[in-house]
Amino acid sequence: MQHSSNMKKNYRIHYPSSGKIYIKGKIHDIQVGMRKISLVDTIRITDGKKVTESNLPVTVYDTSGAYSDEKIEIDITKGLPRIRERWIMERKDTERLPAFSSDYCNERLAEKKLDAIRFPMTHLPLKAREGKSITQMYYAQQGIITPEMEYVAIRENQQNEQLGIESHITPDFVRQEIAAGRAIIPANINHPEAEPMIIGTNFLVKINTNIGNSALSSGIDEEVEKAIWSCKWGGDTLMDLSTGDNIHETREWIIRNTPVPVGTVPLYQALEKVNGEISSLTWEIYRDTLIEQCEQGVDYFTIHAGLLKAHLPLTKKRTTGIVSRGGSIIANWMTLHHKENLFYTHFEEICEILKQYDVAVSLGDGLRPGSIADANDQAQFAELNVLGELTKIAWKHHVQVLIEGPGHVPMHKIRANMDEQVTHCHGAPFYTLGPLTTDIAPGYDHITSAIGAAQIAWYGTAMICYVTPKEHLALPDKEDVRAGVIAYKIAAHAADLAKGHPGAQVRDNALSKARFDFRWKDQFNLSLDPEKALEYYKAGRLDSDSDHCTMCGPHFCAMKLTKQMQECTKAKAEI
Amino acid sequence: MQHSSNMKKNYRIHYPSSGKIYIKGKIHDIQVGMRKISLVDTIRITDGKKVTESNLPVTVYDTSGAYSDEKIEIDITKGLPRIRERWIMERKDTERLPAFSSDYCNERLAEKKLDAIRFPMTHLPLKAREGKSITQMYYAQQGIITPEMEYVAIRENQQNEQLGIESHITPDFVRQEIAAGRAIIPANINHPEAEPMIIGTNFLVKINTNIGNSALSSGIDEEVEKAIWSCKWGGDTLMDLSTGDNIHETREWIIRNTPVPVGTVPLYQALEKVNGEISSLTWEIYRDTLIEQCEQGVDYFTIHAGLLKAHLPLTKKRTTGIVSRGGSIIANWMTLHHKENLFYTHFEEICEILKQYDVAVSLGDGLRPGSIADANDQAQFAELNVLGELTKIAWKHHVQVLIEGPGHVPMHKIRANMDEQVTHCHGAPFYTLGPLTTDIAPGYDHITSAIGAAQIAWYGTAMICYVTPKEHLALPDKEDVRAGVIAYKIAAHAADLAKGHPGAQVRDNALSKARFDFRWKDQFNLSLDPEKALEYYKAGRLDSDSDHCTMCGPHFCAMKLTKQMQECTKAKAEI
Repeated sequence: MQHSSNMKKNYRIHYPSSGKIYIKGKIHDIQVGMRKISLVDTIRITDGKKVTESNLPVTVYDTSGAYSDEKIEIDITKGLPRIRERWIMERKDTERLPAFSSDYCNERLAEKKLDAIRFPMTHLPLKAREGKSITQMYYAQQGIITPEMEYVAIRENQQNEQLGIESHITPDFVRQEIAAGRAIIPANINHPEAEPMIIGTNFLVKINTNIGNSALSSGIDEEVEKAIWSCKWGGDTLMDLSTGDNIHETREWIIRNTPVPVGTVPLYQALEKVNGEISSLTWEIYRDTLIEQCEQGVDYFTIHAGLLKAHLPLTKKRTTGIVSRGGSIIANWMTLHHKENLFYTHFEEICEILKQYDVAVSLGDGLRPGSIADANDQAQFAELNVLGELTKIAWKHHVQVLIEGPGHVPMHKIRANMDEQVTHCHGAPFYTLGPLTTDIAPGYDHITSAIGAAQIAWYGTAMICYVTPKEHLALPDKEDVRAGVIAYKIAAHAADLAKGHPGAQVRDNALSKARFDFRWKDQFNLSLDPEKALEYYKAGRLDSDSDHCTMCGPHFCAMKLTKQMQECTKAKAEI
Repeated sequence: MQHSSNMKKNYRIHYPSSGKIYIKGKIHDIQVGMRKISLVDTIRITDGKKVTESNLPVTVYDTSGAYSDEKIEIDITKGLPRIRERWIMERKDTERLPAFSSDYCNERLAEKKLDAIRFPMTHLPLKAREGKSITQMYYAQQGIITPEMEYVAIRENQQNEQLGIESHITPDFVRQEIAAGRAIIPANINHPEAEPMIIGTNFLVKINTNIGNSALSSGIDEEVEKAIWSCKWGGDTLMDLSTGDNIHETREWIIRNTPVPVGTVPLYQALEKVNGEISSLTWEIYRDTLIEQCEQGVDYFTIHAGLLKAHLPLTKKRTTGIVSRGGSIIANWMTLHHKENLFYTHFEEICEILKQYDVAVSLGDGLRPGSIADANDQAQFAELNVLGELTKIAWKHHVQVLIEGPGHVPMHKIRANMDEQVTHCHGAPFYTLGPLTTDIAPGYDHITSAIGAAQIAWYGTAMICYVTPKEHLALPDKEDVRAGVIAYKIAAHAADLAKGHPGAQVRDNALSKARFDFRWKDQFNLSLDPEKALEYYKAGRLDSDSDHCTMCGPHFCAMKLTKQMQECTKAKAEI
């Protein structure tokens, strides 16, 4: 990555007719960023007179951080403002280390030839003071409402207070949910750039996006661009799944410039450290990788600790075997060494590390079904059972937990996934990949999976992991990321509506009113992708104030006709 | 449309590694066309030896008619083979009229200046003989299994017999379902080019596509191309919703060249005949339009007969009023004339016409909700109630019936739509537009609606009407049609899997096995859109026989690792 060329790129995020607003906290000195969309007036002709009616602006959840705040300078070589640093320091339960604890990290720092691609600033890591518990779960259980908790309570409610919409989501409700393990705020103390967000069944459904290079493609600047791009379209968290070159340096650039929590699968990097030789993978290498990433600021780790030796025979008759990358690696490791899963046997030690940085664990589903034929099989549910057991261990250490779920599941088998997860995992938030509801549409799996994701989120899944159109075929590019994010924002919002999330329908109502009023620009600006809506509309070649479009032409516009009728009825009533 | 230039266009439909096969009837002398996808062998290396294992070809439902049969010459100026003509003639209950019965049709035929755009051949219309009932419903109730019924029974089962998959779908089961009104075969005696297909809750879920010009765009050749294009991607029926110029001539070209049933909203053309002046619309003009279209070969009519004067006040407080084009026109007509809906008052006469040609009636939902705010409201369900009443009237005439449904409905309100339809409409098949599960994604409404369509189809809806990405914004072009059709094929197939349709999973299983075997081309060829899958895969720049792709690179391919492990386990077991 050439610093000079980066400086010239414009990373600013612009949403039409939108401004950044901040809501102040009542308990803490915090400022919660949101996006306010201004609308034009509705104009009616009544009795030959022009009557205008103003439309309230609509405030929406905003994942774009400082990128959409024109008052904040963006320089990706410096990173985003470190908004949580003061909150963390004020708790006085962490200390700044004099150096990084990971051997690998220090080797990379010492490597002169990496200077050209290295993020130019170094932030020494924070760690819990000896004997201190510093996770959001621990605080919550002590009855403490942290700034992070108040932040998400405000964030989840958007304009509900202003509109008089009653909401169950108060700062103390947030605290209770986190204390009970039903929700998490992924918030590594070394990623103070991230704006707090909450993942739990009683909150807005969140979406995760995956980026990351592979040995065959993508450079650092492309990945940073994809990260910001994902935040622009509404990605709530971001997993960096890089498996190619310079994973450590790529991740540093991403974390320093990403306003949402960042997750990883540390196994991927650990395996790269042994040149892909699964048999060479050791606990020591993995442990050092965990520490390296904890101190960089990764907010949650996917760890495939629930896939046991005893489960392997259950996969033999599967149509598609093991389709989780992490799952297949650990399965191979167990087979080669005749040993139990090292993540399972070392799970307490893993929690001991994670708790020092408040890194959440996302218990990976290494045996998720990769085809309709394998859905809900014995292998899948046997592993889920173990994830429930591990949840209890993590919670003992106050480590926040997510449970990962499938995969490929036909619609009639989706409900059982949610039910089994609730039964076995003690209410920990569920985080699913799709599920894809059929296998027959490569090239369109953002759609096959959005169908399943909307359903499972409605049933209670807290976060859905996006799938792009390139799934099963190739590494997604920027346009694929956009397509995947929007498909999943749709699924998440559809679930929020179905679950009756307070205020979720405000945006639908405002957009539909704009549509009925022929306020075309308001309709576009209120939509999930204003640029696409405008582009498609323009393909229809009409003026932006037209009272019909190319779909129906002037004689057949139902909304125009409805208005004519209403005026006609009104006129007759007056005679 | 210039005949000479048409002749040069290539309308042939090509699917990779696929051939057309025909299954013969056992009761009737019929041939049911299907698409057979050939697969390559699976090659394994076991103990250093190459072992090959053959993979059965997969036969799939085929909507492309003669276009994908290389043995049949395609000439759109002659139209498709008239496969049902013999079956109809053999029933001896119809007669060929000496001339068309519609005044408008005869005027158009006499118009010399239309010669340049007219379909060059004229087929005089068939009509029921005096006193004869000729609908599929009538035959079914008499215990007659028609060639059409046997055709669809074979078509629905594809390769089930060959694979030993038990199926409830026999010719007599088809007959029973049609007799009971639970399913329909739209099959106008004047559209013998259409291959019989069945719409009913106990059969494969079908998808409808809409094409048609508007006053602002699209010529005849573009519409014919879109029709064939829709059949290529899997559209089961096609509605021509033209509202622009030369509707009569455009429709003739479409019907003569479309191998699937064609539907229309006759009101659109009737309104064009009075230059869009709703007040000038009369029963006589509408009646002549019905006859004109019956004799051209339209297979089903959407008729908004259930929207009554008494319902109009129920729409006043709606966010988006009336969004059905037909609904808004008839609502205006009632308001202007202070009269009851003329389709309602003339419904018996409408059935008298339709029954003479076996045209099915699709009872339109003029009051479908156009926004989440209006979903499941009193207006919507009041109209649905009337549709149930009209169903009984149509059935008295042995006219086949579809019931149209919404619209915009959040997920938690979808089930009630199906339940209400079943309660009020006596089991007549439900045919819904989406529903769209949120209002906030213009530009992506094929996705918002595929989510709802998959659900409602799983609950029992027999046919889902596609929505394209341009919904609410502009008239769809060819790529939009493709995107809409594939999204809906996904929703329909997801529902078929969830409903346990016999044999539905064969294609998923074959594709997933190909995926696990790294038989990339088989994976693409078995997919709903082989061209797109290949295009995306090529973007990953690998050879087609690679054992990994750009998503994961060589070290991180889960399927490759699973195979390695399986071989390793096997080797160890042998030691």
